[in-house]
Amino acid sequence: MSELISKTIAAIEPPDERAAEAAQKWNDAKTKPPGALGRLEELARRLAAARGLALPQLARKVVVVMAADHGVTVEGVSAYPAEVTPQMVHNFVRGGAAINVLARLAGAKVMVVDMGVRGTHDFGPGVVSMKIGDGTANLAVGPAMTREQAERSIEAGIALAVALGEQGVDLVGTGDMGIGNTTASSAIVAALCKVAPSEVTGRGTGIDDATLQRKVRVIERALAVNRPDPADPIDVLAKLGGFEIGGLCGLMLGAASLRVPTLVDGHISGAAALLAARLAPLARGYLFASHRSVEVGHGRALAELGPPPLLDLGMRLGEGTGAALAMLLCEAALRVQTEMASFAEAGVSGKKE
Amino acid sequence: MSELISKTIAAIEPPDERAAEAAQKWNDAKTKPPGALGRLEELARRLAAARGLALPQLARKVVVVMAADHGVTVEGVSAYPAEVTPQMVHNFVRGGAAINVLARLAGAKVMVVDMGVRGTHDFGPGVVSMKIGDGTANLAVGPAMTREQAERSIEAGIALAVALGEQGVDLVGTGDMGIGNTTASSAIVAALCKVAPSEVTGRGTGIDDATLQRKVRVIERALAVNRPDPADPIDVLAKLGGFEIGGLCGLMLGAASLRVPTLVDGHISGAAALLAARLAPLARGYLFASHRSVEVGHGRALAELGPPPLLDLGMRLGEGTGAALAMLLCEAALRVQTEMASFAEAGVSGKKE
Repeated sequence: MSELISKTIAAIEPPDERAAEAAQKWNDAKTKPPGALGRLEELARRLAAARGLALPQLARKVVVVMAADHGVTVEGVSAYPAEVTPQMVHNFVRGGAAINVLARLAGAKVMVVDMGVRGTHDFGPGVVSMKIGDGTANLAVGPAMTREQAERSIEAGIALAVALGEQGVDLVGTGDMGIGNTTASSAIVAALCKVAPSEVTGRGTGIDDATLQRKVRVIERALAVNRPDPADPIDVLAKLGGFEIGGLCGLMLGAASLRVPTLVDGHISGAAALLAARLAPLARGYLFASHRSVEVGHGRALAELGPPPLLDLGMRLGEGTGAALAMLLCEAALRVQTEMASFAEAGVSGKKE
Repeated sequence: MSELISKTIAAIEPPDERAAEAAQKWNDAKTKPPGALGRLEELARRLAAARGLALPQLARKVVVVMAADHGVTVEGVSAYPAEVTPQMVHNFVRGGAAINVLARLAGAKVMVVDMGVRGTHDFGPGVVSMKIGDGTANLAVGPAMTREQAERSIEAGIALAVALGEQGVDLVGTGDMGIGNTTASSAIVAALCKVAPSEVTGRGTGIDDATLQRKVRVIERALAVNRPDPADPIDVLAKLGGFEIGGLCGLMLGAASLRVPTLVDGHISGAAALLAARLAPLARGYLFASHRSVEVGHGRALAELGPPPLLDLGMRLGEGTGAALAMLLCEAALRVQTEMASFAEAGVSGKKE
């Protein structure tokens, strides 16, 4: 493992339980029965523990959307052609995609990162170029990338987290774009959790039964051909891809090392979070499951990460759309902490003895 | 039944399915796989059907918080003293309660209504006075109110809906405040659904096991003493109370008659919605379950109302807090409709044939 990756992992501290206790104590003084705001109170505690502050702020929120292409698309595993990846990157830059709309609502910026979109494109200055390769190779016939590329993709995510930290970003959401990437994500979850591909493979953008069967067989072949080592997350990433998944994993590790909480989006972000949690179990204190995707493999990954997702809205779009919606709940949780009156301030009687 | 109530019920039209279809068609042209935004798409369809417009706006949102007292508090069914009801009304006016914080986040106004807070209070001009009585009577020993009071409470809610409609309000959230009102709500749900009180009675603001037992027995006595007729929702409301529940029921009926959708908050709002749906089954097209409360009786009421609640965050505060959070999801659903680019606009390839 590279020095940057191992140093980043070593820098991740346990969440600050004293800050969490202080947050709950503060919350309990507010004019409501203790615990009555349920998971908003849990969120306030976890955000406090991550930031190491009883009353953290959410002044700068960013959804990082990482895009890359996947060689496995030649196997016919997606309902959309691979050309949609760069087309959607253009759409993100112009502000016309779902993530642009939902991030605006959440008061978050969208940062688009090219981690390995195939071909040469003029995306303009709105896209951060961290291209690791010209799309991954087909995981069904060999490794999706080299081990060196896998490490570089993680390092790119770490570098981005450091840059965001320097800008004062205090909440990150993860997002993805890459035709074929639910195949890579299901393969990663199957490998890391040692479960059959059929148990963690879903319909992605909306494939039919025959294509779903093909997708499962492609992942079965990928595992048989590549024999990824479940004890070595970087080996799993290298063999099954993709560049955006490695980038998101690095982003999560880097953010955790800087005590910046990350809202984990859907299936692709879930696979990246699972890689991050396996590389650095302490990172789980900084990973927040935003929503439960329709993708079946997502649930398997989330089960290892901590509290269940905040939202369950039948979504399966990716891009960070679930993360953006969950940012609104984080905002709600922290505004309760800072804007609500206490029993003393409001002159309201407390619970009967 | 009074003429105002029966006229209001008669004025409720079925939701506009053509508007819903037009909304979905518009959504399907957006740059995402069809259906990928799950329940946000369902919300866009239902809001369109309610408003009778393919692309409705949410320019004016209001959370109506209705407050009243309950005679049943003398039975010792709550963890808080009854004086908390007026104290919290003052807190709402000053902007220090949870609903103030969450409504601000959702861009909604808070309207506080005194439906029957006990005693004389100077709440100031921030509270709409529609006082039906000086708190209800104790439902455990006789009717909580007269039938005439029950009808007047519903009429007050209708009048408020009409006033809001004239102000151009296009989305209403419901909220409640009233120490003792989970007892009344559980009693209403038990009566209307013909289930045992123990199945629909929860811990309210946080009572202990002994108090929960007492609360169940109080509701059992209330049903035995009053014999409410499940086929006559106004009889159920009159015998079990309360004034804010009647007011919220009227608000929902009035809003439905004006094609204004209502986000139904927790257990108290759920009981009011159940009354409204029994009085006017078509009203269900305008009622949106915002969140699943911890209160067990809430789930029973919601089961009759339509699609499951949007949020499940372990909340049990009332005041409209769940409704305010769900307003953010309504906003998200409609902004997707108006702000996202279509495949044609963005030059993105569609699904493979």
